[in-house]
Amino acid sequence: MGSLSGVRVIDLTRVISGPFCTQILGDHGADVIKIEPPGKGDVVRQQGNMVDGESWYFAQFNRNKRSLTLDLRSDEGKQILHRLLEGADVLVENFRPGVLSKMGLDDDTLRQRYPRLVVGRINGFGSSGPYRDRPAYDFIAQAMSGFMGVNGTADGEPMRAAPPISDMVASQNLAFGICAALVRRATTGQGDIVETALTNGLIAMMGYLAAEYFATDRVPARTGNDHPMLYPYGLFTARDGEVAIAPSNDTMVERFLGALDMLYLLDDERFADNARRMTHREPLREILNAVIQTRGVDEWIAHFNRAGVPCGRVHDLRETFDDPQVQAQEMRLELPQASGRVPVTGFPVKLREAPASLYYPVPQLGEHTDELLTELGIEGDELATLRARRVI
Amino acid sequence: MGSLSGVRVIDLTRVISGPFCTQILGDHGADVIKIEPPGKGDVVRQQGNMVDGESWYFAQFNRNKRSLTLDLRSDEGKQILHRLLEGADVLVENFRPGVLSKMGLDDDTLRQRYPRLVVGRINGFGSSGPYRDRPAYDFIAQAMSGFMGVNGTADGEPMRAAPPISDMVASQNLAFGICAALVRRATTGQGDIVETALTNGLIAMMGYLAAEYFATDRVPARTGNDHPMLYPYGLFTARDGEVAIAPSNDTMVERFLGALDMLYLLDDERFADNARRMTHREPLREILNAVIQTRGVDEWIAHFNRAGVPCGRVHDLRETFDDPQVQAQEMRLELPQASGRVPVTGFPVKLREAPASLYYPVPQLGEHTDELLTELGIEGDELATLRARRVI
Repeated sequence: MGSLSGVRVIDLTRVISGPFCTQILGDHGADVIKIEPPGKGDVVRQQGNMVDGESWYFAQFNRNKRSLTLDLRSDEGKQILHRLLEGADVLVENFRPGVLSKMGLDDDTLRQRYPRLVVGRINGFGSSGPYRDRPAYDFIAQAMSGFMGVNGTADGEPMRAAPPISDMVASQNLAFGICAALVRRATTGQGDIVETALTNGLIAMMGYLAAEYFATDRVPARTGNDHPMLYPYGLFTARDGEVAIAPSNDTMVERFLGALDMLYLLDDERFADNARRMTHREPLREILNAVIQTRGVDEWIAHFNRAGVPCGRVHDLRETFDDPQVQAQEMRLELPQASGRVPVTGFPVKLREAPASLYYPVPQLGEHTDELLTELGIEGDELATLRARRVI
Repeated sequence: MGSLSGVRVIDLTRVISGPFCTQILGDHGADVIKIEPPGKGDVVRQQGNMVDGESWYFAQFNRNKRSLTLDLRSDEGKQILHRLLEGADVLVENFRPGVLSKMGLDDDTLRQRYPRLVVGRINGFGSSGPYRDRPAYDFIAQAMSGFMGVNGTADGEPMRAAPPISDMVASQNLAFGICAALVRRATTGQGDIVETALTNGLIAMMGYLAAEYFATDRVPARTGNDHPMLYPYGLFTARDGEVAIAPSNDTMVERFLGALDMLYLLDDERFADNARRMTHREPLREILNAVIQTRGVDEWIAHFNRAGVPCGRVHDLRETFDDPQVQAQEMRLELPQASGRVPVTGFPVKLREAPASLYYPVPQLGEHTDELLTELGIEGDELATLRARRVI
């Protein structure tokens, strides 16, 4: 039984940020009911790589949920939603600000009618401020948060992260916020309204780059793979590929140079301490690469690990998922779909007593509509009528 | 009162990933007691940009905590730690696997002696598997997770994200996992051991890139700022800088081209649908940039926003923190330190009833040692002796 066993989540989200959040809740045992428009469902069901009629992109974000079709624009659909909310602990949505209010579910109504309910919400810029109504997407959030501006090389353009990182970070922030609100509810009995925005999540991750800007009043330069404050540190070129090496302090640098049999470099006045090594980064890079390129990546990784130097191969995704450590950590799962086994990424949060588990594969659109409405006492003719009228 | 009000956290973490996690808990009301080695403290206190003797890098990750100095290698230090754990709800650590056991705090002991305690842990690769004992750092995790391999341009090298993203993601994962365990404890009375690893957190964010690899058995190419599945989408060049534009479906593309008065492009057979636009991305990019470079960034942003086209400026960090939306969302805070006001990033998770707050500025090393030990009944001569013996 997962940590969130007994927590029922009504999930109105679609695309990425919301569904990834509710999947995290589902992985940890919450009963997630994904509400989708009848006939078409979440738009991601038709996007990305399709195999045997199923989107493997959709599969990445929608395990451990049950699917209920419901037309939320219809009065009957709204009534059914309210009946679901009466038995729910959490409501999650990622509409643009104001859309939920137009459905009659404004915050004040939700707080009054369902005082124990935790409402979770993801949007682009937050629900106050001049940009609150702007449409927002990951790429825009990466640009406006300052995140792109610090990524990439000094001579290249600002560079996004390839995964939709603002969506994923917002998902994690919201999953945390919802649980924090549930912790409070356990003692106060009171729900809450929890919100996170794509831009705000990335801004909160600017860490030492923000500190550098605040302290110096200069915006941090793009430094590519070079650490802005440490050298040697970064990518080095072995005979058959690149090695990532990350000595984070003088002790580690000594271990690294010792492993290369090049401790004498510390006697060179250009390289005697970190500040001087930063100034003379290029000649030191050339000297180190001259030696590193004499052997292969595997050999160096084994050698540096024996010496206690933090290092690693730059994996492509095949190498990542084939890696014995990644397999030992079960970071590739297979969902038992009706169409066959569908691989997805695994659970990054491991709990010893109440671990994350696979409760449900990815639901077909409306797969659990009958089962869930029957729980509400909607059966037989009533069900058939709702279906004929395309409410479900 | 924050959502985690009443939750006491014993924080043994240092550097980034652990301190960012416990700061998140503190922001939401947890009583975080940061335990640091006497005399020197968390190594980050001396790193990064120092202003008036304070590290602004350290400030980014250590507000809302109290600092207690304690030598955990001494028997007296260990005894005091146990007395603190008797009154605690959560213990967080980011040592290498095995270090806590050597202090006598192995998992079985912790579970037996403190059955209600939630133990949170961040490490590099997880506490099982062949790499469990390897030192891990953000750069290595970015390399080995496959994250770097998909970032950057097709003709450039694999590119890290500039912030230490694997640390920050692990912090968020652990903050979530700890709260999920607290939710379960509220009904079962049982604590748990929660773990997350730098690499695993990033692997779980590979999303559609992992799906693409699983579905095609080909590793995704690096595509720089171009979306691998959509065009037009990405950076465009205005007269005085770049504009990020992200039309995510055909309707948005029509709005975008309509706003440019270039809907006729859809009649060109090269650009009639997304698949053909992907094939003919370069000529379309040239045509669009030819028009976009005729006006300035501000003008286009205003114009596209009126048309409902997702767009934004590529901000540097100054522009980010000067942005009226970022100010409205209070994503820049000022800590009232003794040395003056220190700016830091704000709270990305907003709760209506129990919002995150600033409870404590960044503590001086050992600032709360006397206060906290007095709570345990350690006072007067006993305190003085402990201090003289450098236990505290």
